[in-house]
Amino acid sequence: MKSIFHPKGFLFSTAEAAIKKPGRKDLALIYSEREAMIAGMFTTNNIKAAPVKVDIKRIKSDKGQAIIVNSGNANACTGKQGMNDAVEMTALTAKALGLKQGDVYVCSTGVIGMPMPMERITPKISELATNLGKSVIDDVAAAIMTTDTFPKAISRKIKIDGKTVIISGICKGAGMICPNMATMLCFIVTDANIEKSALDKALKAAVKKSFNRITIDGDMSTNDTVLIMANGMAGNQLITEDRRQRTEDRQNSGYRKFSDSLSDITYELSRMIVKDGEGATKLVEIEVKNAKDEADAEKSAFAIANSMLVKTAIYGNDANWGRIMAALGYSGAGIKEDKTDIFLNGLKIVSSGMGTGRDKAANERLKANEIKILIDLHIGKGNAKVLTCDLTEDYVKINAEYRT
Amino acid sequence: MKSIFHPKGFLFSTAEAAIKKPGRKDLALIYSEREAMIAGMFTTNNIKAAPVKVDIKRIKSDKGQAIIVNSGNANACTGKQGMNDAVEMTALTAKALGLKQGDVYVCSTGVIGMPMPMERITPKISELATNLGKSVIDDVAAAIMTTDTFPKAISRKIKIDGKTVIISGICKGAGMICPNMATMLCFIVTDANIEKSALDKALKAAVKKSFNRITIDGDMSTNDTVLIMANGMAGNQLITEDRRQRTEDRQNSGYRKFSDSLSDITYELSRMIVKDGEGATKLVEIEVKNAKDEADAEKSAFAIANSMLVKTAIYGNDANWGRIMAALGYSGAGIKEDKTDIFLNGLKIVSSGMGTGRDKAANERLKANEIKILIDLHIGKGNAKVLTCDLTEDYVKINAEYRT
Repeated sequence: MKSIFHPKGFLFSTAEAAIKKPGRKDLALIYSEREAMIAGMFTTNNIKAAPVKVDIKRIKSDKGQAIIVNSGNANACTGKQGMNDAVEMTALTAKALGLKQGDVYVCSTGVIGMPMPMERITPKISELATNLGKSVIDDVAAAIMTTDTFPKAISRKIKIDGKTVIISGICKGAGMICPNMATMLCFIVTDANIEKSALDKALKAAVKKSFNRITIDGDMSTNDTVLIMANGMAGNQLITEDRRQRTEDRQNSGYRKFSDSLSDITYELSRMIVKDGEGATKLVEIEVKNAKDEADAEKSAFAIANSMLVKTAIYGNDANWGRIMAALGYSGAGIKEDKTDIFLNGLKIVSSGMGTGRDKAANERLKANEIKILIDLHIGKGNAKVLTCDLTEDYVKINAEYRT
Repeated sequence: MKSIFHPKGFLFSTAEAAIKKPGRKDLALIYSEREAMIAGMFTTNNIKAAPVKVDIKRIKSDKGQAIIVNSGNANACTGKQGMNDAVEMTALTAKALGLKQGDVYVCSTGVIGMPMPMERITPKISELATNLGKSVIDDVAAAIMTTDTFPKAISRKIKIDGKTVIISGICKGAGMICPNMATMLCFIVTDANIEKSALDKALKAAVKKSFNRITIDGDMSTNDTVLIMANGMAGNQLITEDRRQRTEDRQNSGYRKFSDSLSDITYELSRMIVKDGEGATKLVEIEVKNAKDEADAEKSAFAIANSMLVKTAIYGNDANWGRIMAALGYSGAGIKEDKTDIFLNGLKIVSSGMGTGRDKAANERLKANEIKILIDLHIGKGNAKVLTCDLTEDYVKINAEYRT
């Protein structure tokens, strides 16, 4: 992992609470010295974990100063006790830090349907507060891992009005990864000085083309959360939504720089999530071009990305483009069989709906670690890219044995 | 396999054409001595194989007398040549049998996107015609297998107006199995004397609750076809759609008996398909009760049945009901978390949205070969049952190596 910059005024700590099992850090605290602007996006699953419900309420205030997060237990499907536990985690954190309870957010990831081991979490929260500053953000990235095989963190340093602004993001992924955010937690901290509506807009734009365009297994989790805290300590002029008319002015605006960097960060994080998909050996980018519209492009790219037959073929180095055609056909998107072209890592394998006879060469190209499948539908102007991974025996192993 | 009855006037033959590889029967002919009433249902995939396109046109005549079918090559995504080949197969068959070309149907299953090896198929078609009667319907069931591990056939004998009527069905399944029919071919032959609209109605009703309620991998194929031929040789009075008012009259009607037996046959065949799902070790029935309506029940049952996380957990004997809840949550169906009950082979594992703490006992019950997951949503009156199977390393192996 490259070294991750730390934005001004953010402190971190981690602890071992043996939530699922002992021997690893599984509890972490993210803290801003100043009350920060906070924006968030949450799972669209009808079943939402208790901490998600808590955060959705609190975020209406637009303000926050700390996030307490654990791995090993999702605190989902845990009823009233789960809600009490989630609130209690924020209350204990607020008390230890001398904050308003409403300024503390809580996130959990791990197994669904188990009560939170509060007897082990409670004593660790004051320890987290005491140890603030003894961990770096990379340590938090490690503490929130579940079946992830590597911690995921990235940061960008930009200049706005001559001031250095840092944006750093971490996330965890691995399973239950699907459009509209996954079993995923993502925390982004920045010292940018930015108004709430601009922060919201930048976050939405970033998530739309990153976390909402990845799929590992088509399952959507109950816990997905992206939170960004901006504490303003970089001292730049307030970044506002860009309402200027002239394109060249907009391109150099603080908002544009911030928004581009944030999109860059979420895209890179989402790539890391897919690369670390459970059992995955290959990162696969599906790009659909010239669909009727963007929605159709997205729909057909996701049908391919979620096809178990396509994913196993990629794993087996088998350029079985018939499975791609079949997925296009059932995606619901408008397609014309005899206009469809498919390229595999640059090699045209389907031309006007028929094989080009280059399957052997294509099989060779599938041996790469990164696969790009480009589909040109030749119908309209809609484009979309979706990231996914191959499907392997190890995915099955990991998920057949996750709890046992 | 139980012995399969042969309806009057149907003859069968099979041949080795080495379509994908030598050493097995891969071409078959189904023939009725009399021109029969024929009804069919076809894949809803936008990409349709050439033989499907041919059959969809021909079936408008309501008449048919022969079906030529091959495994090993799907004749899909094969362009004009594929269409020519499909038509040619029917022309050769018609010539060999002395039939009108429009009375011959053609079906193919196997790899997508490869040209049909007509040089090997052509000489076998006259052989098929010559050998009619030397094979039984079970042999046809074996000849249409691809990754199937056993042939699938079943029949029913019923009395209508004192006459014995036989209905016999065969099918192949294995991969690309998804709602709205799968990579599946199903042929049903009957000597019933039945009008076309009654045959259509009975077939639609049967397919709706059988082939359209199974899923193995969520992939829908380009070749799915169900064809039923009824040649009337049983000599019963013409079966017509039931328009009688009194329930007791309807219950004893010829239509009702025929329709029930046909539904029974397609349900049993669809169970066999799922049982033989690629790599499957367990047959899984998902029943959703008391959803808002039938559509919601079906939607949520399919979300669970298609969840890779649920399917791997079942394989691993892990009663991970959190994954079932998560799938319910993202299914799009209306649910109330705190009203949801889940039973696993009769054991209540979720009560009002929370675990009952019986996971260990539930893990034991998962060791059975047949798993029944019952979800009671306690919202309305919609019910639906969906059949699926577990997801194993072998599914990945089979599909990573299918062509290579």
